[in-house]
Amino acid sequence: MKHKIIIDTDPGIDDTMAIAYAIAHPDIDLVALTTIFGNVSVDEATDNALALLDYFGYEADVARGESRPLVMEPKPHSYFVHGQNGLGEIEIPKSSKTATDRDAADYLIEKTKEMPGEIDICAVGPLTNLARALERDPMIADRVKSVCVMGGAVYRPGNVSPVAEANIWNDPHAAEEVFAARWPVVLAPLDVTTKVVLSPHFFADLEEADPRVGKLLSDMARFYARFYRSHSGINGCIPHDVMALAYLTIPGVYMQKRGALATVTDGLGIGQTIFNPAGKPTVDPVWGERPQHTALLDIDAGFFAAHYFDTIAKRPTEIGD
Amino acid sequence: MKHKIIIDTDPGIDDTMAIAYAIAHPDIDLVALTTIFGNVSVDEATDNALALLDYFGYEADVARGESRPLVMEPKPHSYFVHGQNGLGEIEIPKSSKTATDRDAADYLIEKTKEMPGEIDICAVGPLTNLARALERDPMIADRVKSVCVMGGAVYRPGNVSPVAEANIWNDPHAAEEVFAARWPVVLAPLDVTTKVVLSPHFFADLEEADPRVGKLLSDMARFYARFYRSHSGINGCIPHDVMALAYLTIPGVYMQKRGALATVTDGLGIGQTIFNPAGKPTVDPVWGERPQHTALLDIDAGFFAAHYFDTIAKRPTEIGD
Repeated sequence: MKHKIIIDTDPGIDDTMAIAYAIAHPDIDLVALTTIFGNVSVDEATDNALALLDYFGYEADVARGESRPLVMEPKPHSYFVHGQNGLGEIEIPKSSKTATDRDAADYLIEKTKEMPGEIDICAVGPLTNLARALERDPMIADRVKSVCVMGGAVYRPGNVSPVAEANIWNDPHAAEEVFAARWPVVLAPLDVTTKVVLSPHFFADLEEADPRVGKLLSDMARFYARFYRSHSGINGCIPHDVMALAYLTIPGVYMQKRGALATVTDGLGIGQTIFNPAGKPTVDPVWGERPQHTALLDIDAGFFAAHYFDTIAKRPTEIGD
Repeated sequence: MKHKIIIDTDPGIDDTMAIAYAIAHPDIDLVALTTIFGNVSVDEATDNALALLDYFGYEADVARGESRPLVMEPKPHSYFVHGQNGLGEIEIPKSSKTATDRDAADYLIEKTKEMPGEIDICAVGPLTNLARALERDPMIADRVKSVCVMGGAVYRPGNVSPVAEANIWNDPHAAEEVFAARWPVVLAPLDVTTKVVLSPHFFADLEEADPRVGKLLSDMARFYARFYRSHSGINGCIPHDVMALAYLTIPGVYMQKRGALATVTDGLGIGQTIFNPAGKPTVDPVWGERPQHTALLDIDAGFFAAHYFDTIAKRPTEIGD
């Protein structure tokens, strides 16, 4: 049985890495991309989603999503991380196809009615589309199999403030609605994503192994790695978004904890994602009443990198160290 | 909603700590104790189970279980760990009550028919009773809510061989049947249990806080700590069995991984528990075909100790460090 997945995405270099993984993985049926502002504008995200599917030779729906946060003023897009076009300045042909008539939230509502209990939503941008879907149809929470989210920083600093990670900080009110809903959320915060750094050598080898998809990822990674080198001193880049998605295919590779998730929606800590372990009491009883989700907190990084390489290169991963 | 729990047990000092916890915890409804050989003989385990329930002033069924492993010759009991009577040489009055007519396996089968989907079995001795229940009625796997097991050593040495932990080693064939079944198993191996050491000071304070239950546990712990001091050089004792049980009440305090579990049933590694992370390929495809369970691999040890103390002392645990 394949995982039926909708990726909610703002491509984005690591978004592209996640989309390529979903298409290449034999156990994933990528149903659709829903788009969102974040790394780029929603229009650019939608154009990129359509163009990437064409480039990968894959048919899937694309539904355009929200252009701005639920409540807050929009933040600047992350062009300095992902390039002016969101794809590390790598030009790929525009698609002649268009997005569906339904917007992203309606698409999620309708698709989960068609296939109740079967769809995993993997959200790798701000959570505005998911919050809109919950607002329009709260029962969607019962129809989704799981919601995997790249976002947050639980026990380490954030990447846009001392406590906030960019996806959550871009729309904290939306994140709060998603975390307060009774669907099973699996959060891949910076705690786990930053454990994996893919080096220039990794991408050079990937380009050799797959001169089409591997080369595109390698070209984009060159731009992305410049950001990591200049901002974090890291030799390589972090495939954040892939790590939310790969929980569906290689769950045992992650260390996880159960608990409540919440988002700070105002003040100095705005955009912070707070985790309270299930069963751990707090002075404020609100934590115990919230739905219990899953936070991914560590990973077998070496295996993840080998597995990502082999999935894109369409080789079986064999047992490693 | 309380957790309806049957503890499968060979009391046993840490078994007694687990039983006391189950009785004291407001969210647990202890339905029964089923008994098993291991730390002591099954007759001694049954007598101890009945006597402990009387001592704690608690009514629950006791069902006598298997007296020996499925296949292997029985090993000597662990009197040097738990004392000649299994309770650290502490004498408590014998009960005038008796075990149920049904044996442990039949009791598990019938009770899960009465309350399908509601019972968590917490198995803290050899897994022979659970294997017998599966042999007599394989459908029990669909009626049990979860099976929490204290046993195994995943990424660290065993305690009865370089690779084997005592509960699994006492009946590896039974463990293998339990791990091969499609009920959700949560394993608390030595990897997680050995993270918690309860010191003599802990028990001195517990005795003061609860002069009846706390004192009994403190008196037993004195014997138990002598074993840890002489065999492991540890100043205190490890409440192994409590940690399988407490996963039901404080799940978020544990770090966990998903994966397959299997037991070595012959040769030099007999009794070893092997874990393969979900999604991680192996040369032998058998691993991917096995049911996926949960292994607990780390814990917030300080919180666990505070929580155990406060549960026995019937105080609310408040936020800590």
